[in-house]
Amino acid sequence: VAIRVKPSPPLPHRITDLAIIDELISELLCDNHPVAVGISFGGPVDHSQGVVRLSHHVPGWENFAICSYYQEKLNIPVFVDNDANVAALSEWAFGAGVGKSSLLYLTISTGVGGGIILDGRIWHGMDSMAGEIGHMTIDPQGPVCLCGKRGCVERLASGPYLADDARTILREYPEKGTILRHIVLDELEKITAREIGQAASQGDDLSVKLVKRAGIALGIGIGNTANLLNPECFVLGGGVIAIGDLLMQAIVSSARQTALPEVKLNIYPTALGNFSPLSGAVALAQANLVSIL
Amino acid sequence: VAIRVKPSPPLPHRITDLAIIDELISELLCDNHPVAVGISFGGPVDHSQGVVRLSHHVPGWENFAICSYYQEKLNIPVFVDNDANVAALSEWAFGAGVGKSSLLYLTISTGVGGGIILDGRIWHGMDSMAGEIGHMTIDPQGPVCLCGKRGCVERLASGPYLADDARTILREYPEKGTILRHIVLDELEKITAREIGQAASQGDDLSVKLVKRAGIALGIGIGNTANLLNPECFVLGGGVIAIGDLLMQAIVSSARQTALPEVKLNIYPTALGNFSPLSGAVALAQANLVSIL
Repeated sequence: VAIRVKPSPPLPHRITDLAIIDELISELLCDNHPVAVGISFGGPVDHSQGVVRLSHHVPGWENFAICSYYQEKLNIPVFVDNDANVAALSEWAFGAGVGKSSLLYLTISTGVGGGIILDGRIWHGMDSMAGEIGHMTIDPQGPVCLCGKRGCVERLASGPYLADDARTILREYPEKGTILRHIVLDELEKITAREIGQAASQGDDLSVKLVKRAGIALGIGIGNTANLLNPECFVLGGGVIAIGDLLMQAIVSSARQTALPEVKLNIYPTALGNFSPLSGAVALAQANLVSIL
Repeated sequence: VAIRVKPSPPLPHRITDLAIIDELISELLCDNHPVAVGISFGGPVDHSQGVVRLSHHVPGWENFAICSYYQEKLNIPVFVDNDANVAALSEWAFGAGVGKSSLLYLTISTGVGGGIILDGRIWHGMDSMAGEIGHMTIDPQGPVCLCGKRGCVERLASGPYLADDARTILREYPEKGTILRHIVLDELEKITAREIGQAASQGDDLSVKLVKRAGIALGIGIGNTANLLNPECFVLGGGVIAIGDLLMQAIVSSARQTALPEVKLNIYPTALGNFSPLSGAVALAQANLVSIL
């Protein structure tokens, strides 16, 4: 059984999250008897201890031993990992990376996260912190990111930052972004990456510029990672990727320019879409069951 | 038996290199009977096929099957890998990274190269191209590198580029770098990273600036790699590192600023120095013998 835990901002506590999950579990299970549970958690976890470190969105999750909590309830093995890692495993097991020896998954969404699969296993690093491609510095003179540094990939390519930058420019330059303004009927706070993508596809000057800048930033991040790790493929998911061709072309061309000529590059869109963290929880349970059996 | 193959520019062909190596081997072996040979090659190799791809310095090495060449001569198993990979393995097996689960080795020298050890094994990547941290773009507006891109770590931190940049500035600004000028007695072509380091330690304005810039570039490369791979340690070798404290402090402080606060950083100087590619050839033979026995 796969459970995807995405802490939900409107009900802001772990207790309420767990109540919803428990209800869903009973509905889902009925009379089924699963052999293991895989959990995809939307935040940093210590996978080896089965403990959530925290949720960046919902309080109460700090150091919560989620695996033993469900292990006691269900009396079967329970495994947890971070949602980007789980999505990476999912694309490797069932999606765009089937049969590849190594894969780097990027989700470009509220943030820019990543998961690394090497020889068919999630690479966690020393502190379970591996995969933070979103905070790769690619322009030390660039704008300041929430993390405090300048010119992170995330600062230049995440959905909220794209929207923020669009709003700032629209407010300052009344002549720019006519199509984007029209799409949101001048209600600038309604702008998201989706409207920017829509406006860009209709030729909006400002939106095209922002989408290209995001693509170049992502491409430099991918090219740098290719030079360093030389993985067999990159798989790109997350809402911002839905912007489509203009963004993908900018990513691929910038990644190709950044990677050394001898470094081959395979960049695919997600095959599983939003479903990847969920099917990945199944893959996580399967992979761990095999290793403990 | 460990053999370090570093193609030597004054004798510019594989044939002459091999003749020298053959002579050294007979001297070295005498009546010893080694069980395997490890080769550290100063250029790209296909380790799985035992084939040298090319030497960037000496012609004739293109696609040379070095392992079968020595296997036929010596009738024992022969293994080859790129010198940065071998040096990384060496630091892990015998040097600064003993007991660590993962290690990233950087050599800052004529170029900036890297080798990655994950779970005690060299990570090669799909095309044996992993470890090219030297060509990580860290400043898209930076100076142009030999590889054609702007602002690579190597462009900002390798010995020859440091010397080039010093010469360019000294020629353009007669008032700058008085101490450095004095050290080389105004013969600017004599400047290497060593003289720049020496001048910097005596407070030379230009040299301090160049060393700090190199340290910042290396630190961004290391911090970015820490965010991505979260290895247990970084080990730094190569002639430029001999510049010492001023450079190391700039590297550590810039790496710490670049890595996310949750990402731990351990940065050590090489424990084996120039000896690491050679002792690494022993480690390479040992590791491969274990895996085939």
